[in-house]
Amino acid sequence: MYGKDRIYKKVELIGVSSNGIEAAIETAISRADTSLDKLSWFEVQNIRGHIGEDGGISEYQVVIKVAFELKE
Amino acid sequence: MYGKDRIYKKVELIGVSSNGIEAAIETAISRADTSLDKLSWFEVQNIRGHIGEDGGISEYQVVIKVAFELKE
Amino acid sequence: MYGKDRIYKKVELIGVSSNGIEAAIETAISRADTSLDKLSWFEVQNIRGHIGEDGGISEYQVVIKVAFELKE
Amino acid sequence: MYGKDRIYKKVELIGVSSNGIEAAIETAISRADTSLDKLSWFEVQNIRGHIGEDGGISEYQVVIKVAFELKE
Amino acid sequence: MYGKDRIYKKVELIGVSSNGIEAAIETAISRADTSLDKLSWFEVQNIRGHIGEDGGISEYQVVIKVAFELKE
Amino acid sequence: MYGKDRIYKKVELIGVSSNGIEAAIETAISRADTSLDKLSWFEVQNIRGHIGEDGGISEYQVVIKVAFELKE
Amino acid sequence: MYGKDRIYKKVELIGVSSNGIEAAIETAISRADTSLDKLSWFEVQNIRGHIGEDGGISEYQVVIKVAFELKE
Amino acid sequence: MYGKDRIYKKVELIGVSSNGIEAAIETAISRADTSLDKLSWFEVQNIRGHIGEDGGISEYQVVIKVAFELKE
Amino acid sequence: MYGKDRIYKKVELIGVSSNGIEAAIETAISRADTSLDKLSWFEVQNIRGHIGEDGGISEYQVVIKVAFELKE
Amino acid sequence: MYGKDRIYKKVELIGVSSNGIEAAIETAISRADTSLDKLSWFEVQNIRGHIGEDGGISEYQVVIKVAFELKE
Amino acid sequence: MYGKDRIYKKVELIGVSSNGIEAAIETAISRADTSLDKLSWFEVQNIRGHIGEDGGISEYQVVIKVAFELKE
Amino acid sequence: MYGKDRIYKKVELIGVSSNGIEAAIETAISRADTSLDKLSWFEVQNIRGHIGEDGGISEYQVVIKVAFELKE
Repeated sequence: MYGKDRIYKKVELIGVSSNGIEAAIETAISRADTSLDKLSWFEVQNIRGHIGEDGGISEYQVVIKVAFELKE
Repeated sequence: MYGKDRIYKKVELIGVSSNGIEAAIETAISRADTSLDKLSWFEVQNIRGHIGEDGGISEYQVVIKVAFELKE
Repeated sequence: MYGKDRIYKKVELIGVSSNGIEAAIETAISRADTSLDKLSWFEVQNIRGHIGEDGGISEYQVVIKVAFELKE
Repeated sequence: MYGKDRIYKKVELIGVSSNGIEAAIETAISRADTSLDKLSWFEVQNIRGHIGEDGGISEYQVVIKVAFELKE
Repeated sequence: MYGKDRIYKKVELIGVSSNGIEAAIETAISRADTSLDKLSWFEVQNIRGHIGEDGGISEYQVVIKVAFELKE
Repeated sequence: MYGKDRIYKKVELIGVSSNGIEAAIETAISRADTSLDKLSWFEVQNIRGHIGEDGGISEYQVVIKVAFELKE
Repeated sequence: MYGKDRIYKKVELIGVSSNGIEAAIETAISRADTSLDKLSWFEVQNIRGHIGEDGGISEYQVVIKVAFELKE
Repeated sequence: MYGKDRIYKKVELIGVSSNGIEAAIETAISRADTSLDKLSWFEVQNIRGHIGEDGGISEYQVVIKVAFELKE
Repeated sequence: MYGKDRIYKKVELIGVSSNGIEAAIETAISRADTSLDKLSWFEVQNIRGHIGEDGGISEYQVVIKVAFELKE
Repeated sequence: MYGKDRIYKKVELIGVSSNGIEAAIETAISRADTSLDKLSWFEVQNIRGHIGEDGGISEYQVVIKVAFELKE
Repeated sequence: MYGKDRIYKKVELIGVSSNGIEAAIETAISRADTSLDKLSWFEVQNIRGHIGEDGGISEYQVVIKVAFELKE
Repeated sequence: MYGKDRIYKKVELIGVSSNGIEAAIETAISRADTSLDKLSWFEVQNIRGHIGEDGGISEYQVVIKVAFELKE
């Protein structure tokens, strides 16, 4: 594959899940997968979360960039 | 709302206005509002401006990221 | 043009070429040109590359942001 | 004052106001003023905002650091 | 809630746990919860860890900022 | 204008005003205008301010870079 | 130990694992452990991953710096 | 000590001294020591200084973060 | 030369050329050379460019810092 | 290849050449190739250069990180 | 002084001295003092140094920004 | 020397000393000198320190990058 002219696009998504950091990333990836072409890789930009009324972590919010190749 | 799996997308926009920083942000938001789903929040990335022939500020250019929830 | 309310959008692209850094940027720009409105400028974000089996550079990968005006 | 040994502390606050960026900073400063010693200066860290149901900016959220001298 | 003048404070904490990244964050949150007002959200600043005599990871150290609203 | 070899210089200025962020930028621009060639644009680097004895904001200090074309 | 002259070295490693972020870190640490002196700590630099043909995350790639003391 | 759940807090201080960078750090540490629990380490964030009427350095201002363990 | 007290100054320039990145740097250096003392080195800060009506790159804009020694 | 546990190492090199940016990168890669295992990719960190007595660019200095897989 | 419209300029200097970091800063300040208006403050940007033939530090090179008020 | 193709390598070291920042840098340099080829320069990355039981600074920890030329 290497050496051939091609072009990728990156979009910035935020995945949210109450089940931890990897689960939040997977949420973003799975949703992106249905609306974008073939995805290639992701890069974590930021990890955040919300704290509920009970003082516990109610959800993780992970900002990622997802890259996919633009087909001709 | 918190605790439910969901996904947001961020897009990067530049609003331009001769009426100051807030006006430039509002320009970007108002235009974005017509082409994107329900917007949720914005983050200022950069504040710039152009200086006219008369040495005064002819416009403010504010780079923002706008986030909105992706609906299923 | 300056002084008029308007809005730009930036998208993040990665151009790949075996012919050097400028060629990689041009790859991204030329492809973007066919799918986006009138492009205005680009900003280089990152310069990377792949090293082939023979120990030479098989391609340059240049991450850029491309900006274009959103028409009403 | 310069040349004398002394110590300052910085705290990070977020002021929120629907009236623009300066108003959000003033909100944070005015509240800080009642609970901290004599304030000296502030530094803007981040400018964000919320977008309401009507697609307009419902509030500005400005993250600042506020510094004040620790008295002996 | 949006649109009302209010103020948040952020404090920087480091949670330590031998049970992974989320566990280290939860350690910091749970302790913070007992001494601060109602917490709102956290932001991960840095992820580090210590390596024990046996060459394994003996603990994760996660630096976070925790935000909470200042009540009048 | 585009496509012609030319050179710009950037200088770093701090404008101070008690009338808000835009006013501080304008102070820097107006003074720069009298001693430099034709100015072209500015970029905000940092927004700070001083807090007076009464706990209010006595002035805004905005660090900007100002660019202007070097004439032959 | 503190107060004694000594020197540490940091090396940059990327651990890859299909089992999540902590597993990727442990992969890097365990391999580093066999070729370096006694390791002391690690710092996460970047979290990335690859997305497979099926649209799922095929692996996590975590860039870390690992520090170890240089013995005399 | 490693491996046990615990929590640290970081505060941001500015030490000022006319006797150089280390003296400014020591000023911040010595004052912090009297009002906080047992301190553990510091990290230099920024080194600045003031220049007096005679054109010499009248004082060094060093911004540090100081960390200390929160006791149960 | 090393070991002798001396002082350098850095200025920020933007070189523009339609012939690529190195040509844009050389434009800035050549112009700087006629108005400043003996130049010593440059550091690339940013690489940008303009896209023309035809969708091609009409020029490269490279922001550099140029350093030169201040003579007594 | 994806999905298999493995580990990469990054080293930081500076390639120097009078023939431009790509030539400087190639210098670093070609030398690295003889002393390291199979190289995989590089990332440009910084682009600098030296200015000669005649006011022209005598060489480009490009700081890169080179990554290669650690074999078992 | 606070509250009055005014403007400062920052210039970037590198002071070099074989006598340590503070001495390198003082070198830059003392030379700047003779060619600029009344200096106000400095900010350290970067600390570097050269290593001589004997493996010892032959000089410290400290990059600073120096600010001074522009008089009307 | 300038103008000749050559390659440098940078390694990241942490020097520790109870005698201040310069002493910590010298510790790292002197140790590096015995195991690496001819060193050329260093760049300070980070300045930290440990605080002892008595509330004083027990040691300075300075992270530096050291560069040296790779000989053919």
